[in-house]
Parts: sequence; structure tokens; C-alpha cells
Amino acid sequence: MQLSKTPKIKYIKQPTSQVWIDQAIANLDIILLDHSHCERKAAGVALNLMFRYPSSVRLIKMLTAIAREELEHFEQVNQWLERRNIPLAPLNAPPYGAALNSQIRRNEPERMLDLLLVYCLIEARSHERLGLLADYCNDYELAKFYRGLMVSEARHYGVYWILATTYFEQKVVEQRLEKLAIFESEVLSNLHLEPRIHS
Amino acid sequence: MQLSKTPKIKYIKQPTSQVWIDQAIANLDIILLDHSHCERKAAGVALNLMFRYPSSVRLIKMLTAIAREELEHFEQVNQWLERRNIPLAPLNAPPYGAALNSQIRRNEPERMLDLLLVYCLIEARSHERLGLLADYCNDYELAKFYRGLMVSEARHYGVYWILATTYFEQKVVEQRLEKLAIFESEVLSNLHLEPRIHS
Repeated sequence: MQLSKTPKIKYIKQPTSQVWIDQAIANLDIILLDHSHCERKAAGVALNLMFRYPSSVRLIKMLTAIAREELEHFEQVNQWLERRNIPLAPLNAPPYGAALNSQIRRNEPERMLDLLLVYCLIEARSHERLGLLADYCNDYELAKFYRGLMVSEARHYGVYWILATTYFEQKVVEQRLEKLAIFESEVLSNLHLEPRIHS
Repeated sequence: MQLSKTPKIKYIKQPTSQVWIDQAIANLDIILLDHSHCERKAAGVALNLMFRYPSSVRLIKMLTAIAREELEHFEQVNQWLERRNIPLAPLNAPPYGAALNSQIRRNEPERMLDLLLVYCLIEARSHERLGLLADYCNDYELAKFYRGLMVSEARHYGVYWILATTYFEQKVVEQRLEKLAIFESEVLSNLHLEPRIHS
């Protein structure tokens, strides 16, 4: 068993298990297709926040940049699909997103804080897992691609953290993130049967 | 009364009236704020279509490019708001969008055709009106900005037309567009009281 070269990721309570790595590397084509969906969803998530908080200047500025970048990644992942002759197709989402969404409180301002922190955690986990794909995948060019994306993902979870601490007191943010991060790792503690970025 | 320098726009049945021009030029700050919302909505519309038709390769490719460009325009319009000290704020939407959406048939494949053609018409109308703002606005730099955006808007309505004729027979597309275009002009025949890009 190879040891992960990816360092410990900030905000993530439990590192990804070897079983996920094995499942992902054995199903790289499905992982690539799921990754394409993830990038489109990430753009959608940023845009939805921009619709929900149209007067929050810093949020609008930072998330416009993120949405643009996620769409660029979406394009790049789709070029990888084309290169590998993987047709575009819908995929069932793993329970991860819905489970995290269930933790978002329904009233403002708590809702805004939870949305920012849940997306922070999803980006942090994506960052970790793209790093693992880069470490373990046998295709040198694909590994290089994943490594390149990781840099952006790290910036993205940083942006969600900055936004949370822009609109909320740092202590409140830290306490809530601690709770959500524990939950996030629990959701992933049982591997989902279908290979996904967030299985 | 100044005569419009903007040429007749393809797909548009009735050109915009002088009363809209007068209303818009007298309320340029609100029009700029509404324009910001329009650009974000246009990005959202492209992304929604990408979520709805995840396997349609040409649609995915062309609309990813459009969504990225709309977000770039959104950023640019927001810079104009900043320059003019217009704070970001929500705005009531005029009845235009909801009226056009009411014409979208609910079953596939008609739904896809109608979505593409409604967005084609909205882009065509935006193209026409940004041109009118460029013609009539007294701020030389702002006029130049509008003129620049017009070029992209023209490309955008072309893209929606191309997608419609990719997935449907040209004759079917033309007949449906004819009906929707008549409806679109009717919706705008009574000026909405609040100044908006689509009032």
C-alpha cells in the first residue's frame, strides 16, 4: 500500500481512506465524469450564493471569480473526457451533498454562515481528493492536470473561509466549522458503493 | 427626437420605442444596476440549461463559453456601478421574463426548443437595447462600453439559434420562433413603469 504524498488538509477532520483511493483509481473514467459534474455544480453553487446575497459586495466579487474559474475547470475536465472517449452523461449523486445540505440552518444569518462553511468543506475535501488522484493515478499527464487543479481548489476553500470571517465573528465561524467538519468526515466514513469524487 | 443609429435586429418583430429610450436615459443608474442583474441571470440561464441537458455535447460546449462570458460582463458592469457609486442592491424584475417563461411548453422535446428560442429572443432584445443605450447615452466611456458588449450579445443570440437548429429541424425552429417573437414584442408594447433593460 502506497503512502499518500498529499499533506494534511486544513479544515478536514479525517483524511480520506485507502479504500476510497482504490475504488477511485479502479474506476478512473467514472471519477472523471463525476469530476465534470462536480465542477459544474461548484459553479452553480457560487452563482446561487450570488443570487441569494446580491448586495454583499465582497461575496459578489470573490464568487464571480470562483464561478468563472470553476467553469474553466469544467471545460478542461470535459476535454479530458473527450480525449478518453468518455461520453457526457448524467450520474447519480452520492449522498454527500444532500447530507451536508441537511446541516444548513434555515434562518438568516445562520443560513449564510452554514452555506459558506459547507462549501468551504466541500472545496477542502475536493482539494484533498484531487491531490490523491494526482498521487496514485498512473497517467502522468492526468496526474499533472489534477495537481494543477489542486492549487485552485486550495484558493477556493480559502475564499469561502475569508467570506465567512468577513460576515461573521471569527470565533463563531471556528465553532461552527468544527461541528460541520466532524459531520463531514462522518458522512464519508462509510464508502459509498458507486465511485465518486465524494463517495 | 434623435433617430436610432442601431440597425434592425434579427428575430426582433418590433423595434424598441422612443418612450423606453427616454425612460432608460433618464434613469441610467437604475438601468446599470438592472443590467448587472441581467448579466448574472444570463449566466444562470446558461448554467441551468447545462444542468438540464448534461449529455448534449454541443450545448454544453457552447453554453460553457457563454456562461463564462456573461460572468465577465457581470464583473465589468459591477465595476461601472462602483465607479458611479451605485451600491449593489436587489431590484424587482419587470414582467418580461415571467411572461416569456409562460410560453415554454412543459414536455420534452418542445421544452428544450422553447427554452433555446426564448433565450435567443432575450439576447437579441438585449443586443438591441444596449445598442440604443450606446447611441443615446451622454457618457462617452459608458457608450463605448455598451458598444463593446453588443458584439458579444449578438454572438450569444446566434449561439442559441445554432443550438436550436442543432437539435431541431430548421423549419420547426423558424415556425416556433415566429410565434415567440410576436409574443415577445407584444409583452414590451406597454412600457413597464419601472426603468429596466426589459421594461
